[in-house]
Amino acid sequence: MSGDRRPIGVFDSGMGGLTVLRAMEAALPEESFVYLGDTARLPYGTKSAETVQAYALQATQLLLAAGVKMVVIACNTASAVALEALTEALAPVPVVGVIEPGARAGVAATRNRRIAVIATEGTVKGGAYARAIHALDATIDVVQQPCQVFVALAEEGWTNSDVTAAAAAHYLTPLFAGGDGPDTLVLGCTHFPVLADAIRNAVGCGVRLVDSAATTATAVRSALAASGMAGDGNGKGGARFFATDAPERFARVGAIFLGRGIDAADVTLVDLRP
Amino acid sequence: MSGDRRPIGVFDSGMGGLTVLRAMEAALPEESFVYLGDTARLPYGTKSAETVQAYALQATQLLLAAGVKMVVIACNTASAVALEALTEALAPVPVVGVIEPGARAGVAATRNRRIAVIATEGTVKGGAYARAIHALDATIDVVQQPCQVFVALAEEGWTNSDVTAAAAAHYLTPLFAGGDGPDTLVLGCTHFPVLADAIRNAVGCGVRLVDSAATTATAVRSALAASGMAGDGNGKGGARFFATDAPERFARVGAIFLGRGIDAADVTLVDLRP
Repeated sequence: MSGDRRPIGVFDSGMGGLTVLRAMEAALPEESFVYLGDTARLPYGTKSAETVQAYALQATQLLLAAGVKMVVIACNTASAVALEALTEALAPVPVVGVIEPGARAGVAATRNRRIAVIATEGTVKGGAYARAIHALDATIDVVQQPCQVFVALAEEGWTNSDVTAAAAAHYLTPLFAGGDGPDTLVLGCTHFPVLADAIRNAVGCGVRLVDSAATTATAVRSALAASGMAGDGNGKGGARFFATDAPERFARVGAIFLGRGIDAADVTLVDLRP
Repeated sequence: MSGDRRPIGVFDSGMGGLTVLRAMEAALPEESFVYLGDTARLPYGTKSAETVQAYALQATQLLLAAGVKMVVIACNTASAVALEALTEALAPVPVVGVIEPGARAGVAATRNRRIAVIATEGTVKGGAYARAIHALDATIDVVQQPCQVFVALAEEGWTNSDVTAAAAAHYLTPLFAGGDGPDTLVLGCTHFPVLADAIRNAVGCGVRLVDSAATTATAVRSALAASGMAGDGNGKGGARFFATDAPERFARVGAIFLGRGIDAADVTLVDLRP
């Protein structure tokens, strides 16, 4: 039986979602991908829910036009405030977000039933992680901390800088002070996995770090199987990239998140403005 | 003789331009102001020249509609790439940018004819400061350094944090190492004046820090006088604020830059999308 060779669409406000693409490429080698970063309007993390919804709707329409069989919202902020609207607007194409997989990873990891979530201002303000965790287990204690500066540090490529170490200590030390702090930290922004070393140093080795990337790949695999859309490897064309601004910067900064080089010539500039 | 009581329009991608408004409020107490921050699409500093031009044109049309007599582009990135287009599009309303005043302040301050400029990626890439300085004195040596993380640190309000100290050391120490470094540092982004203490600690007390705010206020005074548009104090209504997203965040973060509190109720949400 031949598989569904259409690509999977991946959407993010910018380059951070490439950490999710990286996990999907590793977990789903038989699939091909189309990635869209809305770099002309990033970051979403400091913007209102209404604005993020409008931007995400415009952007994902482009993925539909590119013929994708599924859309992965590889952006915590957009998943937090726009997943429901996108699921409705893009139907019957399935839409997968990163919040529920991240919450699921956190719940699976915690032993003392205390989870800390770090994310952008927008994600924390909306409280989507706390809701998703409590939907899985209402007895878990959740603390949330916005870490807006981490986004800039990740984009600058300062993954092992003393600046990042100082920022991690500033944000995280208060969350884990005392003997009965959370034993699990959810990296609730797709930028944060590249700062994992500095974050781990700040919180200590007794805290488990989880992120949405691997669990989102698992969720995508399940969704593909459920809908009979799994690829067979013959449509495999790797990944194509679209950006709404500055393809050169997308390629340069994106390589930090994807973990491999991106040729600027492989990044197509698109205009989403109505 | 009565003066021109129409307000002066001030435009920035976000809240950083409030450092320029602060200087103008101090220097021009007889004037009133309308400030517009394009917070739905900030930051401009990592976006392409074409995108910044399009955004700035849309935004400044709103100031014209609000009846301003002059427009101040209180954003280095927009001044660097869009001043000419805006001057043409908004004519006959005069347009004043912040690059030329900043360059003028740097040239006036240097003794050893070596100037360092720190700015966003977009401003540095366009080279507008080097051109503006060389237009005033072609023999001056100019070094430029993008300091993108400073924007996030300023917006987080980490004006005296060890994180900011570490970032300042990272960016600035190489520029001023050795005995014959620049004696003048131009803060070529309106966010940076609030980080002046950390910047000064990193570069040492032998380096003069200059920014565009005070010299832009002087340039505005001259332009008002030249065009017979100076106010007489009777139209004085302080400042009104417009933002394209998240008025609450504008008020909270904006207070860092304006140096006084902003009531969120005084910030009007506007939609620039066509």
